[in-house]
Amino acid sequence: MALISPSRRLRRTPFSEGVEAAGVKGYTVYNHMLLPTVFRSVEEDYRHLKEAVQVWDVACERQVELRGPDSGRLMQMLTPRDLRGMLPGQCYYVPIVDETGGMLNDPVAVKLAEDRWWISIADSDLLMWVKGIAYGYRLDVLVDEPDVSPLAIQGPKADDLMAAVFGDSVRDIRFFRFGVFDFQGRDMVIARSGYSKQGGFEIYVEGGDIGMPLWHALMEAGRGLDVHAGCPNLIERIEAGLLSYGNDMDRSHTPHECGLGRFCNTATAIGCVGRDALLRVAQEGPVRQIRALEIDGPAAPGCDRAWSVMAGERRVGQVSSAAWSPDFGTNVAIGMVRMTHWDEGTELTVMAPDGPRRVVVRERFWL
Amino acid sequence: MALISPSRRLRRTPFSEGVEAAGVKGYTVYNHMLLPTVFRSVEEDYRHLKEAVQVWDVACERQVELRGPDSGRLMQMLTPRDLRGMLPGQCYYVPIVDETGGMLNDPVAVKLAEDRWWISIADSDLLMWVKGIAYGYRLDVLVDEPDVSPLAIQGPKADDLMAAVFGDSVRDIRFFRFGVFDFQGRDMVIARSGYSKQGGFEIYVEGGDIGMPLWHALMEAGRGLDVHAGCPNLIERIEAGLLSYGNDMDRSHTPHECGLGRFCNTATAIGCVGRDALLRVAQEGPVRQIRALEIDGPAAPGCDRAWSVMAGERRVGQVSSAAWSPDFGTNVAIGMVRMTHWDEGTELTVMAPDGPRRVVVRERFWL
Repeated sequence: MALISPSRRLRRTPFSEGVEAAGVKGYTVYNHMLLPTVFRSVEEDYRHLKEAVQVWDVACERQVELRGPDSGRLMQMLTPRDLRGMLPGQCYYVPIVDETGGMLNDPVAVKLAEDRWWISIADSDLLMWVKGIAYGYRLDVLVDEPDVSPLAIQGPKADDLMAAVFGDSVRDIRFFRFGVFDFQGRDMVIARSGYSKQGGFEIYVEGGDIGMPLWHALMEAGRGLDVHAGCPNLIERIEAGLLSYGNDMDRSHTPHECGLGRFCNTATAIGCVGRDALLRVAQEGPVRQIRALEIDGPAAPGCDRAWSVMAGERRVGQVSSAAWSPDFGTNVAIGMVRMTHWDEGTELTVMAPDGPRRVVVRERFWL
Repeated sequence: MALISPSRRLRRTPFSEGVEAAGVKGYTVYNHMLLPTVFRSVEEDYRHLKEAVQVWDVACERQVELRGPDSGRLMQMLTPRDLRGMLPGQCYYVPIVDETGGMLNDPVAVKLAEDRWWISIADSDLLMWVKGIAYGYRLDVLVDEPDVSPLAIQGPKADDLMAAVFGDSVRDIRFFRFGVFDFQGRDMVIARSGYSKQGGFEIYVEGGDIGMPLWHALMEAGRGLDVHAGCPNLIERIEAGLLSYGNDMDRSHTPHECGLGRFCNTATAIGCVGRDALLRVAQEGPVRQIRALEIDGPAAPGCDRAWSVMAGERRVGQVSSAAWSPDFGTNVAIGMVRMTHWDEGTELTVMAPDGPRRVVVRERFWL
């Protein structure tokens, strides 16, 4: 690994001070912001995430805020998921597509009120697309990036930690719902959500000034719970089949190719700009799709570029994320495979940087 | 400095192999792509850039391509610079603004033909804004990111190196003009431009497969010229007053605040979506503006966040980029200062991370 050069362009977060004090060892850059990738080691962080509780600086999940009478109309223009039944207090995972049906982002939409939404984005400047559409259609809506920085609490002891800081009622938040809770006189939107399968919450921290007081309060309250600073874990997220925009999918893919067809209501999502382009793929299904892949051999190197997946001489897919899983004793991977070779148990060859390896298509992810 | 974690999301470039072989020591991330920041040391790279010639992997300057009958109209919608006199073969530095006049990017526009443009972008997903506007206005234009990766040749010996590979006629390219040259049977757009004041070229390499053959040819031809892999140099670009989007300016600033008023023809840029919002600032001038700043004391630490600039107890500006300049024997810096305190020679205080320092406003940059 090489060093990352600091600059203002790679934005720090309201929690960076805490992250540094906790001994962060590596970063990635996400939405022009620093995102920690490892504290002790990826393997130690993984084990700890599955056994205790971690506080994650995911401020890089920036918000695109929609405010005004046309917010709901604009939100529906962005996604093929039918939002008509969505109520304030709910969070929806929403594929965002352009007019060709290509994925622009895969955020969580937070409906704060009928006329106010947050879109909690993955790594692309979705703000630009949303502003462009709002302007082009002369919608009566304000679109901006507010000073809101998510802090995630993840792991099996997340409920206990959160209850210690916000009170027991935080335990009642249902999956992908949110409530508003007080911290030192400030309202905080807290959702039961997060980029792991270990359970937990995301706190939408409004106002950077309250970031470190909250960080310290969580660390203090979590002493008996073995709380530690953490971050999205490469191994755990692959085991769980949590896709990463820019790694496992991009603008060249439809939601259906990404296995996100269940979040698309192409027939009824009236107004979605990508609806027409997606109608056929929604009916016929895609010809390539995301698959869980198991790669033979010892721990594979880091996947910093697509690895071709071959059936003999023919390229039938690619691996986009891979890691050695201590719990499953194999290399877990995410890739995209053509229909002709995507059935469970199909044996293929992946061109890893250290040579070809056998890879087997699985029916589902590990968690 | 912390380590950067490799992943496919931080895209490699067609030249990454050459960059690694040349011993790159640090990276930043720019348009979701790796951009080298240092090879030998920032100071050694700086000295060498001013004396010899360097090959820069600036593939991260991604292109937004406009094709079709409405390309010209769309291009003018994006910028307050009047493009009516621009001819194919010319490059224009164009501030790009949203409907509020806020800077979205500060790219170089390359007019390939009346109906075909490349926008060679700074660090923001401008593609999304351009696509949104094109879709909202139902323009007859295709907008996409092509497989084009700029490679810059910078330094006083750039002409000699380029002539050795492309022939002597490359010397005739005028500043911010381009020509089309052959390399191994492939057409390459070559412009006299680049992100330094040492002179040189940018080669728009179409097709990633030809990247390393070109890299090797340049290194081979430059042996006698002390050619070396390089990258945009922090010290030199501050001396030269070359702004960096995301560091020195962002969406909250108008072009006029960025000192880019000379690239705005607000009265005549008919169709620019930010024109109305910019009319007043174009007439009255901004109340804060980019300034060259000289910071007292020994070498300042890296500027990874805005440093407040104070007049007594009052915040009157900020420093956004800073570095120790060996040639000028001072800390050179870029900042934004309020009108009340921006006159040449004004002495202020900058809150550097290692304590307050005296800072003096200069009339112009160093180069």
